[in-house]
Amino acid sequence: MHDSAARRPVTPVRVQVVDGDAAFERPDRLVSEEPMEIRVHGPGQEPAPVTVTMRTPGNDFELAVGFCVSERVVPGPDDIATVAYCLSGEAPQEYNVVTVRTRVPVDLDAHRRAFVSNASCGLCGKTTLDQLEANCAVVDADLVVGRSVIVQLPEALRREQTVFDATVGGETRRRVHAAGALLAVREDVGRHNALDKCVGWASLENRLPLADAVLMVSGRVSFEIVQKAAVAGIPVIGAVSAPSSLAVQTADRLGVTLVGFVRGDRFNVYSHARRVDLTA
Amino acid sequence: MHDSAARRPVTPVRVQVVDGDAAFERPDRLVSEEPMEIRVHGPGQEPAPVTVTMRTPGNDFELAVGFCVSERVVPGPDDIATVAYCLSGEAPQEYNVVTVRTRVPVDLDAHRRAFVSNASCGLCGKTTLDQLEANCAVVDADLVVGRSVIVQLPEALRREQTVFDATVGGETRRRVHAAGALLAVREDVGRHNALDKCVGWASLENRLPLADAVLMVSGRVSFEIVQKAAVAGIPVIGAVSAPSSLAVQTADRLGVTLVGFVRGDRFNVYSHARRVDLTA
Repeated sequence: MHDSAARRPVTPVRVQVVDGDAAFERPDRLVSEEPMEIRVHGPGQEPAPVTVTMRTPGNDFELAVGFCVSERVVPGPDDIATVAYCLSGEAPQEYNVVTVRTRVPVDLDAHRRAFVSNASCGLCGKTTLDQLEANCAVVDADLVVGRSVIVQLPEALRREQTVFDATVGGETRRRVHAAGALLAVREDVGRHNALDKCVGWASLENRLPLADAVLMVSGRVSFEIVQKAAVAGIPVIGAVSAPSSLAVQTADRLGVTLVGFVRGDRFNVYSHARRVDLTA
Repeated sequence: MHDSAARRPVTPVRVQVVDGDAAFERPDRLVSEEPMEIRVHGPGQEPAPVTVTMRTPGNDFELAVGFCVSERVVPGPDDIATVAYCLSGEAPQEYNVVTVRTRVPVDLDAHRRAFVSNASCGLCGKTTLDQLEANCAVVDADLVVGRSVIVQLPEALRREQTVFDATVGGETRRRVHAAGALLAVREDVGRHNALDKCVGWASLENRLPLADAVLMVSGRVSFEIVQKAAVAGIPVIGAVSAPSSLAVQTADRLGVTLVGFVRGDRFNVYSHARRVDLTA
């Protein structure tokens, strides 16, 4: 499987810079944003679109696989057979359609219903909320992470971050408190896409569930970030910024340790503090 | 029309604070995140869900109306008849389903196709991309904004911002270079929702198109932000952060002036610089 990891994640532009009374033109670089359509088909099925996401080009196959795994389009990572670009279209969109072939039939209607439910008005959102919570097991990994590891994560993220909104899966060895190896760094205009790329990477490398990994995100932590991490079996999430209320409730329910506001020597633990060793 | 503007946009939690060797518990407040389902029905139609968005409670009716307008679910703001909570469900979701009644029949299938297209593989994303661009007229408002107004926008945003990710529609009088009145400030965990709330506010106040307004956003500017602003007729967008490549291309095509990196006395103009008066 080859994908477009080498494609340029930034786009050159000319910009007018205004600086006090002065104004001048100069070249600049912007993070690239392009739509990518993900199509899925199982044995005997025609490829059908399951989503269109605005993403930063690069690691497109990881994004497609990670989306299918973390959104439960397929039962598990082993159910993905191949992933390829759909290249029969017009040139500008040639690398913006990715087709995932699965080993099992996929029920795309059920997947779409999860986003736009057909519940009768009498149910009033209950079905919707239930569907928002993917069928996701509680994360019970017994990883323990030392305080000294957590406070190093933002700097590790900054070092690797070339565009922005990067997501780091920083491995720490089980019950060992030194910082482990950096597993993967993925960047995207969309936070969810950056995480999907990480999950897709792990899936393609046969590393799921990521029971020994810490997910470090550069942005805020929402409900969806926690849920996607839990589906990938990640037991600890760290963030420089704050989580939302539903992110904390979801982390609490799904057994995920959620750490926020990691700044300097300080951080906040919002759920499952048992995985944070304050003495190490 | 009453909505839940008074509902609390923050949720109290207990958090474990780690500060060097010290650790203690204290109360904290997190920005609230809850799902909201938007249902739409025209004359003779049953209410049908059109989207579920994770949002910060508050200004829910504005969000529902703004979504319908900026995503072109209805042809125009005048086509919205009423907006109400669907209150027949279970208590926890009582204020998480909003029903919009329209004066014209709505084709929700067409709307859904715009997000998940049924294009045959041979089209390879072309239809998708075309559909991503809502049927949107070029913004031709002749508003001109002085440099001194633009550099004041981030501070105006900070003053009003009580949670985060606020969006300001800061009015400037046409060809007058003093800062105008602040029109509306809306906040949300989702940037698109904050803008939809502003557009919904303008729609409910019969102020669309916002031909004299400047939209100031606290986050990055994506394709969708530019498109939603253009549908609302907003001629100038300012941001503290950077735009994406597609945001700049879209602003250029739709006649929107896009200003980014507004910091101190500096900013960058990415498109349609004619609306920025450097001498004022």
